[in-house]
Amino acid sequence: MGLAGIDKYELLLDLAKRRGFFWPSFEIYGGISGYLDLGPLGARLKRRIEDKWLKLFVYQHGYVAISTPVITPEKVFLASGHVAHFKDLMVTCLQCNRHFKADYALTQAMPARTDIAVEAMSADEIDKFVLDNHVRCPECGGLLSKSEFFSTMFKTNIGPYSEAIGYGRPEAAQGIFVDFKRVFEATREKLPLGIAQIGTVMRNEISPRQGPIRLREFTIMEMEFFFDPEEAACPYLERVEGVTLPLVLAKDRERGRSEIIRVNPRKAVKDGLIVTEWGAYFMALSVRFVTALGVPQDKQRFEEKMPTERSHYSSQTFDHQIWLDRWGWVEIAGHAHRTDFDLAAHIKYSGTDLSVFKPYEKPILKSRRVVVPQESLLGPLLREKTKTIVEALRTRSPEDIEGSIAKSGFFEIQGFRILPSHVRFEDRTEKEAGRRIIPNVVEPSFGAERLVYSTLEHAYTRSGDRVILKLPMGLAPVEVMVFPLMAKDGLPEIASEILATLVARGLQADYDEAGTIGRRYARADEIGVPLSITVDYKTKENQSVTVRDRDSWRQVRADWRQLSDLACRYLLGEVEFRELGTAVEVSYE
Amino acid sequence: MGLAGIDKYELLLDLAKRRGFFWPSFEIYGGISGYLDLGPLGARLKRRIEDKWLKLFVYQHGYVAISTPVITPEKVFLASGHVAHFKDLMVTCLQCNRHFKADYALTQAMPARTDIAVEAMSADEIDKFVLDNHVRCPECGGLLSKSEFFSTMFKTNIGPYSEAIGYGRPEAAQGIFVDFKRVFEATREKLPLGIAQIGTVMRNEISPRQGPIRLREFTIMEMEFFFDPEEAACPYLERVEGVTLPLVLAKDRERGRSEIIRVNPRKAVKDGLIVTEWGAYFMALSVRFVTALGVPQDKQRFEEKMPTERSHYSSQTFDHQIWLDRWGWVEIAGHAHRTDFDLAAHIKYSGTDLSVFKPYEKPILKSRRVVVPQESLLGPLLREKTKTIVEALRTRSPEDIEGSIAKSGFFEIQGFRILPSHVRFEDRTEKEAGRRIIPNVVEPSFGAERLVYSTLEHAYTRSGDRVILKLPMGLAPVEVMVFPLMAKDGLPEIASEILATLVARGLQADYDEAGTIGRRYARADEIGVPLSITVDYKTKENQSVTVRDRDSWRQVRADWRQLSDLACRYLLGEVEFRELGTAVEVSYE
Repeated sequence: MGLAGIDKYELLLDLAKRRGFFWPSFEIYGGISGYLDLGPLGARLKRRIEDKWLKLFVYQHGYVAISTPVITPEKVFLASGHVAHFKDLMVTCLQCNRHFKADYALTQAMPARTDIAVEAMSADEIDKFVLDNHVRCPECGGLLSKSEFFSTMFKTNIGPYSEAIGYGRPEAAQGIFVDFKRVFEATREKLPLGIAQIGTVMRNEISPRQGPIRLREFTIMEMEFFFDPEEAACPYLERVEGVTLPLVLAKDRERGRSEIIRVNPRKAVKDGLIVTEWGAYFMALSVRFVTALGVPQDKQRFEEKMPTERSHYSSQTFDHQIWLDRWGWVEIAGHAHRTDFDLAAHIKYSGTDLSVFKPYEKPILKSRRVVVPQESLLGPLLREKTKTIVEALRTRSPEDIEGSIAKSGFFEIQGFRILPSHVRFEDRTEKEAGRRIIPNVVEPSFGAERLVYSTLEHAYTRSGDRVILKLPMGLAPVEVMVFPLMAKDGLPEIASEILATLVARGLQADYDEAGTIGRRYARADEIGVPLSITVDYKTKENQSVTVRDRDSWRQVRADWRQLSDLACRYLLGEVEFRELGTAVEVSYE
Repeated sequence: MGLAGIDKYELLLDLAKRRGFFWPSFEIYGGISGYLDLGPLGARLKRRIEDKWLKLFVYQHGYVAISTPVITPEKVFLASGHVAHFKDLMVTCLQCNRHFKADYALTQAMPARTDIAVEAMSADEIDKFVLDNHVRCPECGGLLSKSEFFSTMFKTNIGPYSEAIGYGRPEAAQGIFVDFKRVFEATREKLPLGIAQIGTVMRNEISPRQGPIRLREFTIMEMEFFFDPEEAACPYLERVEGVTLPLVLAKDRERGRSEIIRVNPRKAVKDGLIVTEWGAYFMALSVRFVTALGVPQDKQRFEEKMPTERSHYSSQTFDHQIWLDRWGWVEIAGHAHRTDFDLAAHIKYSGTDLSVFKPYEKPILKSRRVVVPQESLLGPLLREKTKTIVEALRTRSPEDIEGSIAKSGFFEIQGFRILPSHVRFEDRTEKEAGRRIIPNVVEPSFGAERLVYSTLEHAYTRSGDRVILKLPMGLAPVEVMVFPLMAKDGLPEIASEILATLVARGLQADYDEAGTIGRRYARADEIGVPLSITVDYKTKENQSVTVRDRDSWRQVRADWRQLSDLACRYLLGEVEFRELGTAVEVSYE
């Protein structure tokens, strides 16, 4: 591609600003790091990526998507553990008062020490490291403060009462967990059940430095997938037999190694590398999805997080990483096994039963020992307290009562001694229709803006000094350009009519009459438009237009009245380019 | 409809919770007012409403949509006037410490006084009213505090520096204004230009009490439409000639009247009722849009806001209101003429030029008087200061210099006296290619969640004890249900195959095998599924299935292998129901 030595990010940023894919937010006010605007093309690319994800992860399985608020009351994040755990260690320069994420300060001070696992270090260990190694402020060389925790959730107040604290949610998952019961009931109470959400999340990074990659606000696409841990087989595993998962395992990483193990999903579960079949299935879908965005498989891997790196709710996490020119391996998805951590936490904190009734195939007969108080004997003894004592007896374990009587000759309750004659014991057989379980959860979670950037970077190619953005067909934010060869002689009017036909057909089409036709093709290639239609003087004679393919630059002539249907089918991948018309050599370029 | 006397909101809320349209957020933690969750059906309905809006307001005209952050640095809202103006007057009970929006407290205390225009009252006037009328706490009857302003923006901190204040944006518009220049440049620098945004906004209401209507967080769909005020004609006005705008004018409201004037868009502009053609055009589109959501035209009106009610940035605002059963007239869109207020404010605060270069048809020749310092004479006098003085002279108005010399015989600059011989004056003719203008803006702005609710309420009908949700075809969150007549004999397998075909075709389809077929039709009607396909024993013989129409309950038989294409065309409104197959009488119901 002839891009050796050039920072693709810089090339892409220039293109992105100029043509309207993305740019840093609030530029006219000097900008603010960690925020990104999507321009007309970027916003459309993002929506198409979201739709593709929804179809692949959610709708094809009959799962569902919901929508819950960004600002979330503190209670929810107290329960989920985010108030306690969602924070970063920060150091402050005592001279210039700048704040730094501790790991940034350490790695800046000792760039050669790639062995420092800052994420695994405690505050005390970091403070000791700073002292022992004379770590100073990366900006001014001043002395650093002791490290302290900085909550990376945005905090605010809901309404006028100061105790009503709210946080910008750092993940969409909690909105799903607190709604689990409602959604489960509305979807005919069946497991497994995938509940997805696409929406804004916020992470108050101390000092984000990675342009479009590390954002304080982004769109998450995540699914909480609830399943019965006793029936954890995934019936879709056979659909992804052909997918190879490139795994970098935690046990290897702990020994400082990073080789990739290539294994198919079923074998990964069988060998105990991935703990659930569903987790392996969604990782395979993840490969399919990211590959469909145009990222080659050799630029993808799954890095298993070490226990010290994992989020507090996860018992196994794989980061789906892809290779980006400037930043190297970058996480674009997380696949976490959240077990029953979140549902159990919300059951405990809210007092609401979020368990699921699991019917047995047929009711089970269960034998149960019960205590039968002899009220005719107890009544005269206990008088007005009879009812209370009898009820209390029934709440106690029959085995305990029987054991105590066998051992001591009585069972003491509320100051009374229950003697052998006061009670009988029976074995009763009862039907049990099922029991309550707490579903387990695996979670695939993606950041949409990173995918927009990654898709663009991997689509970016050059041919000589021409840029061709080879976006996968179904993602192109503009699908067809319509050009009049000249901006006169009635050609613009015909072109506008064609444009209107395409737009009415639901295509994303646009019109351009400025500059030479070659210049216009170049502009179309640069933003990845798959088809360009040119209206020329022949069009006035016989309704034929030229159609040009972005990738091969080949052209065909076709009757424009049949073109909108054909173009739709071409963009869906149903017909080949050459089927759109008769091949022609045109020397517009 | 047989709903007289029944609160439609209660009926709908029950349906919405049970089937998964919407419910109050954070229910398991006791809920928190002003937040709403959308369930699987509601989220899909919302996305379809958004897509419809994008197509109608944005893409059909070739306008664009962008995406900018929710959390916005304070500078932006200082410039836009929101820090100063986006607030409500609040009173506090001195006994129970509850806070109330002042207008709520006043109208609760004096429900009969419909003439109190609280929105137009100052803090002092409210305090005086409270004293004069002995207004007390609506909850406990305690004495009320003086009124004070409560900022209705959510406040937070961006990053670890306490001075970096951010607010949750109360409108998406400011993200568009600060990006205007980038988007204008990326879209070939042409006016008019519509820039839209669909995204989350936040309004920290003091005490919202209207369920899904008054939300602290919702999705705004708004377009800032930039046009040249000197070329303000709207070429699309003829497309909406047939639309009637039902206006309630501010001048009538000020006299306590609320009659509706029905007028077409062009006449409304001609008569001076609406100040811009573009504003009238978007109001007409607004009627088309809301009508397409199923709200009858006689349940719609535009209420012009009085000057005291308008936002600080608007010179004319019409609220598009629709009638809702519980709440009466409710605003579902605002149409504001924002003039050049926002761009001018951001030019002033950011120091960035956001004006637009407007070329003349052909360059204008302009005569301009210039001063020509006689450097050969000035040089020996001024020596090393020559350059400075000569440059300073050129920055001064030639007319001022000439006037001073004519009056006093000299012109003093930086302590030197410029005499008549030191300068010459010339008239030079220069070409001016154009000039810079600040575009004007009209804004149509909708709340997506209110539209979801309104669409549902107007779709809600009953036939006997059956609920039929008559959602417009293109909005139904589930488009086709597939039922096996019996859950045995291979029927479920065929039904699943049909389902897969429909899903692959991009349709929102679902499967149900529980209960009698009549019960399943009823469940489908209740959530507004347009088509139900039933697989029965004939299907095994000849591939035919029955297809049932939600609204007429009529049925046809058709070959299921041709059905997915036909169903698509039916759902797009391209074919009639009877064209789907051969009419049959089936007694499943």
